Amino acid sequence: MKKLAVIAFGGNALLRSGQKGTCEEQMQNVADTCQSLLPFLKQDYNLVIGHGNGPQVGNVLIQNAAGEQAGIPAMPMDVCGAETQGQIGYMIELGLNRVLVQEKIQRNVITLVTQVVVDKDDPMFQNPTKPVGPYYTKEQADAYAAETGAVYKEDPKGRGWRKVVASPKPVGIQNVDIVKRLADEGNIIVTVGGGGIPVIERDGIHYGVEAVIDKDLASAMTAIKIGADEFYILTDVPKVYINFRKENEKALDTITVAEAKQYLAEGHFTEGSMAPKIRAAVLFVEATGHEAIITEATKLGDPTCGTRIVK
Amino acid sequence: MKKLAVIAFGGNALLRSGQKGTCEEQMQNVADTCQSLLPFLKQDYNLVIGHGNGPQVGNVLIQNAAGEQAGIPAMPMDVCGAETQGQIGYMIELGLNRVLVQEKIQRNVITLVTQVVVDKDDPMFQNPTKPVGPYYTKEQADAYAAETGAVYKEDPKGRGWRKVVASPKPVGIQNVDIVKRLADEGNIIVTVGGGGIPVIERDGIHYGVEAVIDKDLASAMTAIKIGADEFYILTDVPKVYINFRKENEKALDTITVAEAKQYLAEGHFTEGSMAPKIRAAVLFVEATGHEAIITEATKLGDPTCGTRIVK
Repeated sequence: MKKLAVIAFGGNALLRSGQKGTCEEQMQNVADTCQSLLPFLKQDYNLVIGHGNGPQVGNVLIQNAAGEQAGIPAMPMDVCGAETQGQIGYMIELGLNRVLVQEKIQRNVITLVTQVVVDKDDPMFQNPTKPVGPYYTKEQADAYAAETGAVYKEDPKGRGWRKVVASPKPVGIQNVDIVKRLADEGNIIVTVGGGGIPVIERDGIHYGVEAVIDKDLASAMTAIKIGADEFYILTDVPKVYINFRKENEKALDTITVAEAKQYLAEGHFTEGSMAPKIRAAVLFVEATGHEAIITEATKLGDPTCGTRIVK
Repeated sequence: MKKLAVIAFGGNALLRSGQKGTCEEQMQNVADTCQSLLPFLKQDYNLVIGHGNGPQVGNVLIQNAAGEQAGIPAMPMDVCGAETQGQIGYMIELGLNRVLVQEKIQRNVITLVTQVVVDKDDPMFQNPTKPVGPYYTKEQADAYAAETGAVYKEDPKGRGWRKVVASPKPVGIQNVDIVKRLADEGNIIVTVGGGGIPVIERDGIHYGVEAVIDKDLASAMTAIKIGADEFYILTDVPKVYINFRKENEKALDTITVAEAKQYLAEGHFTEGSMAPKIRAAVLFVEATGHEAIITEATKLGDPTCGTRIVK
């Protein structure tokens, strides 16, 4: 029986800090990340790939705002998220295609547009915290807020005012049974891009909402629902650290769920960065008893690298 | 054995003339079109849906051009096409979800990001004719042409200069075997959006190209490859006409492939409108011996309506 792994690509699998975000840069980054999946492909793992979309959906939102000046109606955030699933899924497909051809491995790569259902009563909707899209002046932000009911908050670094949206928990992954079946057959599936397109359900009918679902959490939930044996969260550091960037910084090799929770409670991990990765890893390990690994893409397949979260 | 039908949604399934293209408008149009699929859903057809993306990719290209002023690098056309597959696929999913829930029908809707391989030596690449994206002044167009090597042509209606890209023939549909299998199981599949993301293949490796693949042709090829029993092309007129909008205009009920070819040769059908639909229908009928039907969405399921192209 082949092993089934879910791998969540982080932001820098696609766009690295200091880059402008050209297509060439993103294609190259994706190609590099896909190249680092080679140990999995060679060991004949079955693979499901989740990915973030922060910089990309940010760009699409700015393009939408800019396009309004040219008379093109802006799309809401759920639709923009769907756009990035197409965009990034396609880039990952091209990156994988290159590795597969080079290694003479026959695997289909299948990108599914994926809605993720959130609870319309999720308390996060009362407390939107996730900044998205362009920066505005206070006057613009007030006007948009009055017009649309959206919430705008001042950027802590003084760059202006931005819309903030909720980050509700994923509760249902669209077509996850099909993801499992196709992955079990050896197809490489790209799904829950950007954490999934956030929808709420009323009497079975789906409605898009302006929200951002954490991609690691959505990937963890996918991993749980498809019975993955391993769950990898890719990031831009080789391991998880406590006392990060302090004198007593310590890289973690293997930690238990209990230790992870303790470190979380002690505030070792940054919100919006390592903390959600740890929570997603904990969710997976608690639900399945299997390991979750947080590591750099280039360290995949090196058993001494990365931080393992175990039961 | 259930019947398998491929239905190609036309431009006005999504955006109607006179509309601005807001999300609400597009969602409503898609919902209406999905509602008209009800006869198929009630008769328990297996369904694969293709769709155009002309207005949507046009808007994304304009948004990309506008976003460049705000420092966001513009994506090339293949990536923009991928974006519209996510966007429109999601809208179709929401539209179908509503009909399925209302009718208490249990079917998964699955949108696949779909690359379509074209021949790098397709003669159309030597003669790009399909205008895409924003209008420019002659000076701007000349500058872009010099910078990128793209071809710009003056709009016949005097609105400015636009990039023109090739419209090569589809030669391979990504994951079409998976489309067939999932559709045969009763899942409704959305694929080859906008005619597919155009890629060329060199030594097995895929490269995106700036091109537009005719969506009816890509849908026809999908229909042939999955062994569809019926192929529907939705448009904004109830039937195909000869001498269209002339005194001797005549609606066609059933025509043979030979008649269709003759009418094509006689110039009865407009390029960029009915002519490619007729060609796609002919392709399907010649390859399969089954009927192709060109009609309005609202007439689906009415056996007296539409134009049938038969062997």
